[in-house]
Amino acid sequence: MKVSKFGGTSVASAAQIEKVANIIKADPSRRIVVVSAPGKRFDNDVKVTDLLIRLANASLAGEPVDRALDDVLARYRDIALDLGLDDGITSIIADDLARRLAASKENPSLYFDQLKASGEDNSAKLIAAYLTSIGLPAEYINPQDGGLVVNNPPARVQALAESYANLSQLRNRQAICVFPGFFGFTETGMLRTFDRGGSDITGSILAAAVGAELYENFTDVDCVFAANPKAVDNPAEIEKMTYREMRELSYAGFAVLHDEALMPAFKASVPVCIKNTNNPFSKGTMIVAERDFSERPVTGISADSGFSTLYVSKYLMNREIGFGRKLLQILEDEQVSYEHIPSGIDNLSVIVRSYQLTPGKEQRIVDRIKNELHADDVSFSGGFSMVVLVGEGMKYSTGLAARATQAIARTGANIEMINQGSSEVSLVFGVLQKDETKILQELYSEFFTPVFAG
Amino acid sequence: MKVSKFGGTSVASAAQIEKVANIIKADPSRRIVVVSAPGKRFDNDVKVTDLLIRLANASLAGEPVDRALDDVLARYRDIALDLGLDDGITSIIADDLARRLAASKENPSLYFDQLKASGEDNSAKLIAAYLTSIGLPAEYINPQDGGLVVNNPPARVQALAESYANLSQLRNRQAICVFPGFFGFTETGMLRTFDRGGSDITGSILAAAVGAELYENFTDVDCVFAANPKAVDNPAEIEKMTYREMRELSYAGFAVLHDEALMPAFKASVPVCIKNTNNPFSKGTMIVAERDFSERPVTGISADSGFSTLYVSKYLMNREIGFGRKLLQILEDEQVSYEHIPSGIDNLSVIVRSYQLTPGKEQRIVDRIKNELHADDVSFSGGFSMVVLVGEGMKYSTGLAARATQAIARTGANIEMINQGSSEVSLVFGVLQKDETKILQELYSEFFTPVFAG
Repeated sequence: MKVSKFGGTSVASAAQIEKVANIIKADPSRRIVVVSAPGKRFDNDVKVTDLLIRLANASLAGEPVDRALDDVLARYRDIALDLGLDDGITSIIADDLARRLAASKENPSLYFDQLKASGEDNSAKLIAAYLTSIGLPAEYINPQDGGLVVNNPPARVQALAESYANLSQLRNRQAICVFPGFFGFTETGMLRTFDRGGSDITGSILAAAVGAELYENFTDVDCVFAANPKAVDNPAEIEKMTYREMRELSYAGFAVLHDEALMPAFKASVPVCIKNTNNPFSKGTMIVAERDFSERPVTGISADSGFSTLYVSKYLMNREIGFGRKLLQILEDEQVSYEHIPSGIDNLSVIVRSYQLTPGKEQRIVDRIKNELHADDVSFSGGFSMVVLVGEGMKYSTGLAARATQAIARTGANIEMINQGSSEVSLVFGVLQKDETKILQELYSEFFTPVFAG
Repeated sequence: MKVSKFGGTSVASAAQIEKVANIIKADPSRRIVVVSAPGKRFDNDVKVTDLLIRLANASLAGEPVDRALDDVLARYRDIALDLGLDDGITSIIADDLARRLAASKENPSLYFDQLKASGEDNSAKLIAAYLTSIGLPAEYINPQDGGLVVNNPPARVQALAESYANLSQLRNRQAICVFPGFFGFTETGMLRTFDRGGSDITGSILAAAVGAELYENFTDVDCVFAANPKAVDNPAEIEKMTYREMRELSYAGFAVLHDEALMPAFKASVPVCIKNTNNPFSKGTMIVAERDFSERPVTGISADSGFSTLYVSKYLMNREIGFGRKLLQILEDEQVSYEHIPSGIDNLSVIVRSYQLTPGKEQRIVDRIKNELHADDVSFSGGFSMVVLVGEGMKYSTGLAARATQAIARTGANIEMINQGSSEVSLVFGVLQKDETKILQELYSEFFTPVFAG
């Protein structure tokens, strides 16, 4: 049994949904289908989710909603018509939206979420109807009926353990299950949406729950590339990588699959495949627990900007038991999470994502470190990028750091920070933001350009 | 005004003390002299401090002390005779030791310390007498009279702030002050000894207190070398380095000046000079706040073995605010201090000195990290060395990491860990212990061997 998730562009139009149907038809083990809300059909198009956000905002503001509602309905109506479905499904969706619009506005955030989640929900209803109409018996599964139970606010939304037992029952359904992505319900029936990449999470949870042989994640790219195609010409395709590699790459700029979405599949050892709805015969990229890494030590190179460093020095710092712990406590008190802590003997740098900082926060952190930890020097500086080499094979490749640092030296850029731990799945370089692209390009050509003897 | 400290080998015999006197005579600004207890005169000799430890142990055990006491007295008597001093000073020392031996044994640790500290104390009395006898008026200063006040137990012994004001009065003495190293007194008059390198600390405190133009630390080597002479043939001499460089070098295997001893001089901006009693015209090594570092990016390379790593991995670790802080708290609860925390995305390694660990401690730490932090993998492994490149100029030297990693690659050794923070005074490599020496040698030849064009 496979769980197949289709993203927004895969269900954006009738033509796309026909591709989805063909994909499902082509492999009878595709028994559970998770769908997003209809996405963009062309560059300047507006996603259904964004139309729903407009609708919810208008409704909450007490403004007329007819126009915004029509925009949403029109998308579903067009798709249904083009797919040759009768008015029934459009009526169901119209009734559903009317019911949601009439819901209590007592909790505006909840009101907003339940409208937004209708994008996926009605997408699932429509696609179930279409599959059935072409002789692929399918049923829409409401996440509340299916048992996708999430925790209560205000904690960040997460599926509760009981969800897995509940959802494992989907194995026994005769029809193909079409499950909306992006949301679940608390035990008392409150709808909660997942964070970014939410439909990917739903698919991953379902794949884990039913013990799928494969979790297919259909999107609009053929595969995961070894480097960002915007920075590197024709980067190599990654055929297979491990969860750890995907996760380390997603840290800095690889946005194909939201990293948190991998977790349930990872824990249940379900392999994941990134595939292209528009080119389903392409092999895609497999994400697995273990792989043979004899060929190439580096699997991918990612880069991301927007990092700051907090530099702290204090004479004889490393004699003070508790110094680092107290420093991290101060950051935690300001709700700042950190990425790395490279350290000398009497100094350390804490690398953080700059978006978490404000001038006030920086000042409070600096003041507390000076006053409470009696540090000699404390300062923030911004404008850094992290460039990350990722590969399970790096551990077994002597001289890899030498090749990487030589490549960076060839660009004339300075290395501000190097971090390599004993796992050695990744080697992280902190560099100035302005040097990021040229370093990425040089590293790519060092590790991915074929070398010809001669 | 200079403060000149003479180590154990510099005051081990009459011939050595004559050299000390010549050094003092040669420069009238040498007004404050700090001395150690007489050290070894030849390889198999026993230091006075070790003789005193035997004496104290015998006395505490209730055994006869005559033999051990004679051994101590003989050392001073021989020196006094050879220096042409009369019996007076030997009697003073004999009376002093008799008084110490008769002291209360109620607190055995205190009893032990006051006997051990007599080594420096009587050395100072003897040297003051000798200097006076050759026409260099000198007076012995008792640390209690001088005002070297230390904190109360059980905290690690440290000079209190008031010591600096007290000791600054030594500027006004007419005679040369001869001050014993190694110990001070609490406000209630309890003697406490400094940790390892204790006489160096006393000298550093005095230099800071009187605002000396220079703190000279006389020992038995000409200078600090750029690498351990036991590992590298004829290593380069370091003429000048910064406090930070000395400190980073002392982290791993550079034992010329105890790092903690630098602190008072560093805080008071007193430059420090490491010199050789046996070759006083050699320039020595200057330790200063700032230096011109245009010549050579790397000042020294140190290496030390005996490190372990604690490896911890947990999927989505870096999403968890507080993970690192809680991990460090667990180490702190077990009184384990750490050196570095290189990290990937979902894993980190904590580098610690292995001597702090026991199998029981390791097990407790691993169990707590698994149970309380729900980590996926937790393990200790030992047998690592840290090799550290140190130099203020490294920050301005593009390609330095490339040269270093290439040199290591040439040895065929793998790099287990790399740590370079934004201070960039040091670049730390974790390697297997068995590879330490060959890596040190290769790095030395990379950064210190002159390159000839051609």
